[in-house]
Amino acid sequence: MSYGDPVTERANECVVALLDGTVQSVDVPLLRPDDLAVLRGEGVFETTLAVDGEPRDLDDHLARLAVSAELTDVVVPEPDRWRTAVEAGLAAWSSGRSPDGPAPDEAVVRLIAPRGPEGAPEAAGYVMVSALPAVSRRQRATGVRVVLLDRGFTPSGAAAAPWLLAQAKTLSYGINMAALRWARSQGADDAVFVAGGADATHRSAGEREVLEAPTSSVVLARRTPSGERTLVTPTLDGVLDGITVRRLLAAAGAAGWATTRATVTIDDLHAADGIWLVSSARLLAPVTAIDGIARDDGDLTREIAALLDVPGGGTGPASA
Amino acid sequence: MSYGDPVTERANECVVALLDGTVQSVDVPLLRPDDLAVLRGEGVFETTLAVDGEPRDLDDHLARLAVSAELTDVVVPEPDRWRTAVEAGLAAWSSGRSPDGPAPDEAVVRLIAPRGPEGAPEAAGYVMVSALPAVSRRQRATGVRVVLLDRGFTPSGAAAAPWLLAQAKTLSYGINMAALRWARSQGADDAVFVAGGADATHRSAGEREVLEAPTSSVVLARRTPSGERTLVTPTLDGVLDGITVRRLLAAAGAAGWATTRATVTIDDLHAADGIWLVSSARLLAPVTAIDGIARDDGDLTREIAALLDVPGGGTGPASA
Repeated sequence: MSYGDPVTERANECVVALLDGTVQSVDVPLLRPDDLAVLRGEGVFETTLAVDGEPRDLDDHLARLAVSAELTDVVVPEPDRWRTAVEAGLAAWSSGRSPDGPAPDEAVVRLIAPRGPEGAPEAAGYVMVSALPAVSRRQRATGVRVVLLDRGFTPSGAAAAPWLLAQAKTLSYGINMAALRWARSQGADDAVFVAGGADATHRSAGEREVLEAPTSSVVLARRTPSGERTLVTPTLDGVLDGITVRRLLAAAGAAGWATTRATVTIDDLHAADGIWLVSSARLLAPVTAIDGIARDDGDLTREIAALLDVPGGGTGPASA
Repeated sequence: MSYGDPVTERANECVVALLDGTVQSVDVPLLRPDDLAVLRGEGVFETTLAVDGEPRDLDDHLARLAVSAELTDVVVPEPDRWRTAVEAGLAAWSSGRSPDGPAPDEAVVRLIAPRGPEGAPEAAGYVMVSALPAVSRRQRATGVRVVLLDRGFTPSGAAAAPWLLAQAKTLSYGINMAALRWARSQGADDAVFVAGGADATHRSAGEREVLEAPTSSVVLARRTPSGERTLVTPTLDGVLDGITVRRLLAAAGAAGWATTRATVTIDDLHAADGIWLVSSARLLAPVTAIDGIARDDGDLTREIAALLDVPGGGTGPASA
């Protein structure tokens, strides 16, 4: 298959490593046309960030890959084989790097486990290393305007319907990508999924539960008049168990914050002192507007960025 | 990537044709590791049946491929290029066929349009031709036991949330496959999706709307005491516009049936005189049990099979 010119131009911005440590160019075809990852979006994946060649939270990502595999009945290769590929991919990435590149060097590391053709005994696997997109780096500081989009299910509905795969990170991300395109068509940068079913319930819109963003988790901060500070993230029903959220809650707890997983409603979002989309590559992006309503988290983003060890972090929302 | 032995054994049961008419073996890697079809399940597809080398309803499938592409913002190749590939694939398939094979020769024809790597100007495309699985042929006669599974959204909810892609046939079929695995784990053969939100509504379970099956549409028959016969299929809200359903409704209308698209509830299913899962490759499978409750459609399946031109059709549910 010919993919056209624009792709060829950026082929060297990406390294592919196989599980035996072999490194190859991204423009070499790798997947068979009957791989169920292609035909049906079957398979699982993980994404993390490597800073100056060091992948963040790799053990946690390998553990979550195993959970996703269990939920989708995929057999994935053993962790050590993934580590071999990550190491080889990052070594090749670093060696191809220009000394004039941005510092620190931030690379997105993807672990991809396509199910393979029908009857394959084990998912194949490979690792891709590419540059952190400039827009991701920028949004850590400038933040994102979000729109609230119906996810269809409710938290309790998703928890009762495991075939909806809400807690698995699968290669069937079509809805997530469509939600991002929809958000951009509305002049926003990102989306936040909220519980469906409003048409069939007697709840007010503000009572609907917040779930997650298409490629990140939602975290909000509340300050009480007495000065207590709490970081809140939605319960795990119907959302992916975010690794960067776990890291943030742990760091915040150690720094004196109260932290909790609780039902978060749309009303809670609007009342929050700060809201962030938290993920493994972009790390965090403050929410600067919800459905067109601007908001300001004061100087909280600087603090949250420090808790997350964001490279070049603590910049806060751009005042520009 | 090595896919293991079991795959190699069946490699010659499948033909791959590119859009320029080139035919190649299925075990030749075709997709780049950064194709968004692999990484995110982005892209669209169609499946149809070819009987003795003749694809059914190809124009309709090409039209629906264009609709799916529009809904997912994918640029797909022009219809004529697909026709070239279908023709080349079927020619190669027929030439490789043993004269001792089953007659008529039934092949599954897949049109796959992966989005391609980031920035690709157009989705790549290819066609796969493979044998109709024996289980599909068998289920036309023996039928399928189904379980009812919550789809998360309601028909009206899905219609109001186009980013949920309910009406696009995308390569993100992970949930559909998970639902089938779940059904099999419950001792059933297939699933029927019903509207979500029961936990949040005041409706009885029987009032929940029926949507579709993971890879087929749902059609039911009602006979009134006065002898009028109606074929019913759910409205298009939240379901894929089934090409084989359209063909069936048209043929049934010409044969004197009343036909309608209407809200179908779980209660309606149980009260129906016949229920079929209708799709482009298996064509039809009578539903013989719902959540463990056996049912019998008398001799209706034979009649429906004739309306659909099912090869070797009109066998009805096996009495064995």
